[in-house]
Amino acid sequence: MTLPQGSTPEAAREQAARTYELDRKHVFHSWSAQAALKPMVVTAAQGCYLWDGDGNRLLDFSSQMVNTNIGHQHPKVVAAIQAQAAQLCTVAPAHATAARSEAARLIAERTPGDLDRIFFTNGGADAVEHAVRMARLHTGRPKVLARYRSYHGGTDTAVNLTGDPRRWPNDHGTAGIVHFFGPFLYRSRFHASDEAQECERALEHLEQTIIFEGPSTIAAIILESVPGTAGIMVPPPGYLAGVRELCDRYGIVFIADEVMCGFGRTGKWFAIENFAGVVPDLISFAKGVNSGYVPLGGVAISPRIAATFDDRAYPGGLTYSGHPLATAAAAATITAMAEERIVENAAQIGATVLGPGLRELAERHPSIGDVRGLGVFWALELVRDRETREPLAPYGGTSQAMIDTVAAAKAAGLLLFVNFNRLHVVPPCTITEAEAKEGLALLDQALTVADGYLE
Amino acid sequence: MTLPQGSTPEAAREQAARTYELDRKHVFHSWSAQAALKPMVVTAAQGCYLWDGDGNRLLDFSSQMVNTNIGHQHPKVVAAIQAQAAQLCTVAPAHATAARSEAARLIAERTPGDLDRIFFTNGGADAVEHAVRMARLHTGRPKVLARYRSYHGGTDTAVNLTGDPRRWPNDHGTAGIVHFFGPFLYRSRFHASDEAQECERALEHLEQTIIFEGPSTIAAIILESVPGTAGIMVPPPGYLAGVRELCDRYGIVFIADEVMCGFGRTGKWFAIENFAGVVPDLISFAKGVNSGYVPLGGVAISPRIAATFDDRAYPGGLTYSGHPLATAAAAATITAMAEERIVENAAQIGATVLGPGLRELAERHPSIGDVRGLGVFWALELVRDRETREPLAPYGGTSQAMIDTVAAAKAAGLLLFVNFNRLHVVPPCTITEAEAKEGLALLDQALTVADGYLE
Ligand SMILES: Cc1ncc(COP(=O)(O)O)c(C=O)c1O
Ligand SMILES: Cc1ncc(COP(=O)(O)O)c(C=O)c1O
Repeated sequence: MTLPQGSTPEAAREQAARTYELDRKHVFHSWSAQAALKPMVVTAAQGCYLWDGDGNRLLDFSSQMVNTNIGHQHPKVVAAIQAQAAQLCTVAPAHATAARSEAARLIAERTPGDLDRIFFTNGGADAVEHAVRMARLHTGRPKVLARYRSYHGGTDTAVNLTGDPRRWPNDHGTAGIVHFFGPFLYRSRFHASDEAQECERALEHLEQTIIFEGPSTIAAIILESVPGTAGIMVPPPGYLAGVRELCDRYGIVFIADEVMCGFGRTGKWFAIENFAGVVPDLISFAKGVNSGYVPLGGVAISPRIAATFDDRAYPGGLTYSGHPLATAAAAATITAMAEERIVENAAQIGATVLGPGLRELAERHPSIGDVRGLGVFWALELVRDRETREPLAPYGGTSQAMIDTVAAAKAAGLLLFVNFNRLHVVPPCTITEAEAKEGLALLDQALTVADGYLE
Repeated sequence: MTLPQGSTPEAAREQAARTYELDRKHVFHSWSAQAALKPMVVTAAQGCYLWDGDGNRLLDFSSQMVNTNIGHQHPKVVAAIQAQAAQLCTVAPAHATAARSEAARLIAERTPGDLDRIFFTNGGADAVEHAVRMARLHTGRPKVLARYRSYHGGTDTAVNLTGDPRRWPNDHGTAGIVHFFGPFLYRSRFHASDEAQECERALEHLEQTIIFEGPSTIAAIILESVPGTAGIMVPPPGYLAGVRELCDRYGIVFIADEVMCGFGRTGKWFAIENFAGVVPDLISFAKGVNSGYVPLGGVAISPRIAATFDDRAYPGGLTYSGHPLATAAAAATITAMAEERIVENAAQIGATVLGPGLRELAERHPSIGDVRGLGVFWALELVRDRETREPLAPYGGTSQAMIDTVAAAKAAGLLLFVNFNRLHVVPPCTITEAEAKEGLALLDQALTVADGYLE
């Protein structure tokens, strides 16, 4: 089933064909073998929908790369970009400029605790790299602890912090990065039987890792407040508070990576606010800060760490730090999200539509092994067998079952975010109840394909 | 002397004061100790000029971070950004989209030789990181040779490739990066007396470095085609051809970093075209590709290296790879530069105004030790003594003489790019003869301050 966008003029089809042809000829794509790629042409988007080169309308349950928190083409953000473009597109980072100052204020007002200095980058990976650099220089220690089942970006340091198979081809023996296991009850590494036990044992494991690596060698622990690409494993109550305590005990900087989970995705401005009272030392952010309308990322910095660089130069930077267009888009995005109560909407839709709806699907589809999430940040773990929990695709890979399920969703008009054996339901934070229900119905159809692969 | 932009309304002053205040409160700046910073507020810009918070007009001989090759606020680029913003701001990299396809075509048509696949990034540092990754995976070798006196970006790998003091606080014993000396006759490391000898000895030094590091361990040699921040040392005739030959002989990938020198800066689309027939395997670019109106960088890839990733996944990526706004700005920038013969203008102004004008200044100002460059890419090396060539500020630092000279230029209405003991004259490629002469006259005044520091 396709949902055509009125009539598709011949010219639009020709343009889409040319886009496709030039893409295959000249564009080198991320994370892929290039020869077999068949990218979908995207010609337009609005709110929770986008249109492909054949004029099909798709409900965007992927938010692209989980970044269009405010939906596609929000008129206030588009207008702000156009106005800033007319006024001043670019300025060197050494100068001060209105859009950057304003975006910094709006972000600092929303960060938890006393984090109030913002270093701007172009995206998530460089935000993570700079957060790690600040931590290393602040502590004078070399090592960083990061979770298995995590993603922190594609530049060399960020990809080696990453705890997924994308690290493997890039690991040239990167010094000073140590991985540990986080809490994940459905696939517990700690033989735990409930959330409280998983939490306790995961913290014990982390502390033992700190002790055996040597506390005086560890600059930082980096954690996604809620791990995203790796599977939306909401940490059990007490885990992040426990990490904070371990960091305090051993003089370690706590970096919360909120690139994916920040700016409304979990129904709070920052995901860590779901865990009352936990304040990290550094937050890396990107994506939702301006919904990716213009490339932007950054680090929110605590006064203690900022003070390290009061009289000593911070040795890092980039040409587009605090770019006017990008920060103008951020200011407009944050303002619109506040005015239109978009973060509250994400919380509401998660609690009343997506959560209950996905759990209801799990009752009827045996391929669903687990449903996890909050806000507009949900994962379905697909399995061959609910007892053994054998995944429908191997760790680090895919399978015909997954490929066919995702294709069925797309043919039905639904775009999902997919990782290994998981479907992520991550629509814009602006999604309405009707759109969420529409998506659940399309997902329902697609899941019959997955069910068909079960013995 | 200041050049006021008509009357400055009280409201504009108040806005500028607020921008400044919020900046000092919430913005963490690159490469700096934060406490003593006094950033200039930039409120507007047009062509080769910008305006500060007090309404002063400044002639922009810095092109910000040497990125506004097309000048500030070019109407065609602004219009293209506004149109793309109205149509489609963001799209995941996995899909295909018109602006990205078109920008890739326009870049591929201009790259030297057969480089025709484009991987897009957000800026220069990640372009360099990905180029290095491609080279390592293509060759299966670990090491990368880079020049002293170079800058390759601020992320961990890029900053460790960098051959300037910004590397030092970030060098945790980064594996596999080896630095060598490049040709630089004015401060020859090879005891050479002319360009030909410098070239020959620099190549001999590079080959010996390759032999002693072990050719089978070396993935890539990365070189700015014309080193930028490090001092605009135009390589002597034959040097880059010699590097190409060494790379061929030893199976090493040649990466030309054209982040600063590409897209018109040297009076050619790519700086390496100044050295007839030399074709690198990979080119990293950013800045001039869209004049920094929207953050964008990338890697142009040879078919041989692209083929490595035909059937094997390239393990790298980023959320905003091939961002629609950024690539729409690139397509408009390249098209306008071609239509308006902006690259030819840069060559012409360099040959007929800036080159002769700066050499004439050197005759009258004893503080000028050397004048180097081409196109709109010039460096003045300031010295305490022409005989000893003692720099007016130490390597890696600054001095009162430099601070006062730059301040005098700014007070006169001229913004320069400064590094250690050097003033860089790097205006937009669109600069007119009259503007270039105006700038030379302002520079003439400022240099009397530098002269005053000579014994
Ligand atoms: C948690 C997290 N950190 C960092 C990144 C990297 O961000 P970017 O792709 O903008 O470099 C991502 C991207 O998905 C992410 O999810
Ligand atoms: C030659 C060169 N490479 C890389 C970079 C890094 O670019 P970016 O600041 O966009 O990361 C620069 C920046 O000045 C540069 O001049």
